[in-house]
Parts: sequence; C-alpha cells; structure tokens
Amino acid sequence: MQNYQAIVDEYVARLNAGDWESVAALFDRDATLEDPVGSEPKRGIEAIAAFYRGNTRNPMKLALAGALRTAGREVAFPFTVTVTLDGAITRIDIIDIFSFTEEGKIGAMRAYFGPDNFNVQGADRLF
Amino acid sequence: MQNYQAIVDEYVARLNAGDWESVAALFDRDATLEDPVGSEPKRGIEAIAAFYRGNTRNPMKLALAGALRTAGREVAFPFTVTVTLDGAITRIDIIDIFSFTEEGKIGAMRAYFGPDNFNVQGADRLF
Repeated sequence: MQNYQAIVDEYVARLNAGDWESVAALFDRDATLEDPVGSEPKRGIEAIAAFYRGNTRNPMKLALAGALRTAGREVAFPFTVTVTLDGAITRIDIIDIFSFTEEGKIGAMRAYFGPDNFNVQGADRLF
Repeated sequence: MQNYQAIVDEYVARLNAGDWESVAALFDRDATLEDPVGSEPKRGIEAIAAFYRGNTRNPMKLALAGALRTAGREVAFPFTVTVTLDGAITRIDIIDIFSFTEEGKIGAMRAYFGPDNFNVQGADRLF
C-alpha cells in the first residue's frame, strides 16, 4: 500500500515551489490529465510536463482544504489555488481526483472546478 | 443548463429526511452508483433505491463541507455524514462525484472515502 497522502503533499509542495519537472515526475509515463474535467485530456508525461510548465509560469499557492479521501487506488481531495488573475488575487476552489498505478505513480488526474469557483480576494497582486 | 446546486441540495435534504424513494428519483433509470469507489457498482434505479433504503435505516445527517465544483456535466462536492456507528457518533468525510444526463438526472455517482475518513465524535448516540 502506497502512502497517497505523502504523494499529494509532494504534489502541493512541488507546485508551490514552481518546480514543474518534479511535479511531472509524480506521473506515470502513460498518464492522462483532464484539467478541468470536460476538456480534452493530455496524454503522456511529456504533454503533462508541458501543461505544468505553462501553469507554473504564473506563480500560484496551493493549500489543501480538507481531508484526503482514499478509496481503493484512487484519492479525492479539496484544495485551493491562489493566483493573480487580471491584477486581482483570486482563490480557486478545486477538487482533484488521482488514480494511482500499482507502482504509486499518478496514472490519471481529473480536476473539478468551474466559473463559480473563482473567488476574487482583492485587487492587489499576490507576488 | 441544469441547476446542479439545487439538485445536490435536494439530495442532501432528502437523505436527511430519510426519504430514500425521493432520493432514488433524482437518478436516471439506467444510472450507476459506486459507493465507495472501488466497490462493485450498483446498476439501475431499482438497485440504487435498494441501496438508499438500506442506508437510511440508520438515521444520518448530511452537511455540505465546501463549494460545489462544476465541470462540464459533472460535479464534485465535499460533505460529511454524521451517524451512530457501534454506539459512537461518527463523522465521515466524503467527496461525491455526480455525472448528469442531459435531462438533469444523476447518471453516475461515485463516493470517495476510506477508513481514515471515519472520525469518532463521542460515545453518545446521535438519534
């Protein structure tokens, strides 16, 4: 049994460090990533690395917002991403689903959020 | 566009009322239900009604624990179920995923929780 909490904690820490290469390293070579749910999934670790490289260009702060829910080889967890969008500090409420491979790599990631989950916090810049 | 928040609010209210028939009525005739994720899915509205009939035999209190995350025709939401288990009031932290049909029925439900999500609150009975 893998320690999924430790992997999720690493995911959050590496994104907060802006280290997209080490984020991508948590994924399986053939992983898929659907962020947000409903968009065309990225397929394979190279497409996933490119996704995080693009995303971490705008500094962001992730924070877990509740307990990890582990069921079989999947986990669901609520978290927030705080980021500067159009000059305003914005908190986005998200729920991620990770499905793990037997080896403890992320085999599939799906991110749930929509327009109602963008909460403008103020007009100042975060970074 | 269906009002998914209203459907989730109804789901919570009907479960809190112990009204399993009206809970099942929120689902599509051919819906699937996987609760918890990793278990054999129930298929069809009759199997789903039987599941809720069994579940509501032990009174429970549901409460949303964060914003609904809507992405395409799916929603994810964190909530708690408080129930008396083995004589102890227990709060279970859960994340549900609903996938909706075009008609606004629940076409698929998946519930994420595991052993770590059972939090004993006290030795008294809730009901």
